[in-house]
Amino acid sequence: MRTDIPINHPRFISLQTRAQLVEGFQSGLVSSEGLIAHGRGEAFDYLLGEKTSEFSVSAIEAACCCLLSATHPVISVNGNFAALCSSEIVLLSNLIPARIEINLFHRSAERERLINQELENKGAKNCLGSFSTKSDIIPGLSSNRRIVHSDGIYTADVIMVSLEDGDRTQALVEMGKKVIALDLNPISRTARTANITVVDNVIRAMPIMINVVNKLKQEKNIEYMQDTAYHFDNKKNLTNSFKLMLQGLERQTISI
Amino acid sequence: MRTDIPINHPRFISLQTRAQLVEGFQSGLVSSEGLIAHGRGEAFDYLLGEKTSEFSVSAIEAACCCLLSATHPVISVNGNFAALCSSEIVLLSNLIPARIEINLFHRSAERERLINQELENKGAKNCLGSFSTKSDIIPGLSSNRRIVHSDGIYTADVIMVSLEDGDRTQALVEMGKKVIALDLNPISRTARTANITVVDNVIRAMPIMINVVNKLKQEKNIEYMQDTAYHFDNKKNLTNSFKLMLQGLERQTISI
Repeated sequence: MRTDIPINHPRFISLQTRAQLVEGFQSGLVSSEGLIAHGRGEAFDYLLGEKTSEFSVSAIEAACCCLLSATHPVISVNGNFAALCSSEIVLLSNLIPARIEINLFHRSAERERLINQELENKGAKNCLGSFSTKSDIIPGLSSNRRIVHSDGIYTADVIMVSLEDGDRTQALVEMGKKVIALDLNPISRTARTANITVVDNVIRAMPIMINVVNKLKQEKNIEYMQDTAYHFDNKKNLTNSFKLMLQGLERQTISI
Repeated sequence: MRTDIPINHPRFISLQTRAQLVEGFQSGLVSSEGLIAHGRGEAFDYLLGEKTSEFSVSAIEAACCCLLSATHPVISVNGNFAALCSSEIVLLSNLIPARIEINLFHRSAERERLINQELENKGAKNCLGSFSTKSDIIPGLSSNRRIVHSDGIYTADVIMVSLEDGDRTQALVEMGKKVIALDLNPISRTARTANITVVDNVIRAMPIMINVVNKLKQEKNIEYMQDTAYHFDNKKNLTNSFKLMLQGLERQTISI
């Protein structure tokens, strides 16, 4: 981790996260396109005030309920997600429990191997990916992301995706799957297509998810979880998250 | 150019541009920080609807008038600008005519050499940079960008910058120079400090600039150009560009 960022810098966490991603890039987990995608996320997070909103907290609760009441939940992992949250991914997957599948847009066998190793270093076992032997094709998808594991994303009923492309989200929803998206851009195709969208930075959302899953398992029954997931209004969630962003921007106009 | 982006992808141009930047990174023109910065630009372009606004067209006209009526205009080039627009930079500099100076925030002799080579491959001659022998220091600037060529940025009356840091724009304006900025973020310090800010993506703005310069040279006299440049209201331009972004966002709210 870089140590030349002053701890009193007003955007310390954002700069530290950026350094973590560059480290992930240097160690081969993150693609160069992933660095660009991160910059994009940074801009949206900046507009959101770099904090978790009340709407994000509600979406996280619904997402956790959805994952806990699923028959076959899968967490889909790409390079950026692994570089920023590998410990949290493994912890969450053990708690739910959910399978982890590595699925990359800019796919390379070496990057898959490195991401798998990173997750295994944090305690993951039997991660799925295109290095596995059983694969199937998601219909209607032309990118490399179409190749998925037969016992993972292909047969999952609930899939959590992060920093995702809209095409795949659409294709998964069309297959009848429920998609939970972690996406900082509330107007992206992914955000709109997913069933539950957590408009938040993964570095803030993941630790909250772990706490919420722990709490739900102790305090709530399956009916509560099914009900919460079922009644979640994603359109309202996105509109609210988006309005929050607009309000932040309108404050900026005054100061031009 | 990468060929794994499906041509029917709704954001094909943006993804292709991203791939072009990654290529520039791989060939040593672009820094890793430049990749993240591009991502931030992508987010603002997305908010602008990824198209050139009428305000951007007006700003481009004023910018071209300013460049054409300058005594000693200079186009400042960094890694991202070179990776995306080298042909257009050379064409524009020949048309005006304006000197090209390579000026990098994350400076390295090798990256400067590669950028110079890239511009020379597109027909540039005698680009300036810190590899040149005559250099001066911009007062009040602590970054590597402070070292400039004595016959280039240091003595220029009009400087066009792209994908720029706010510190340098401020320092150049304080030296009494006119600064034209190509910046996708209308609320950045660069955008607010520059005399004329084109709130647009360089890949769209540069070809338009070339057309406008050609047209102005054929149809208008120096008085018209001086007058247009002088009367350009950048504060109004930025407010309008920003409002457009807000309006676009508000329309998005309805369609969520």
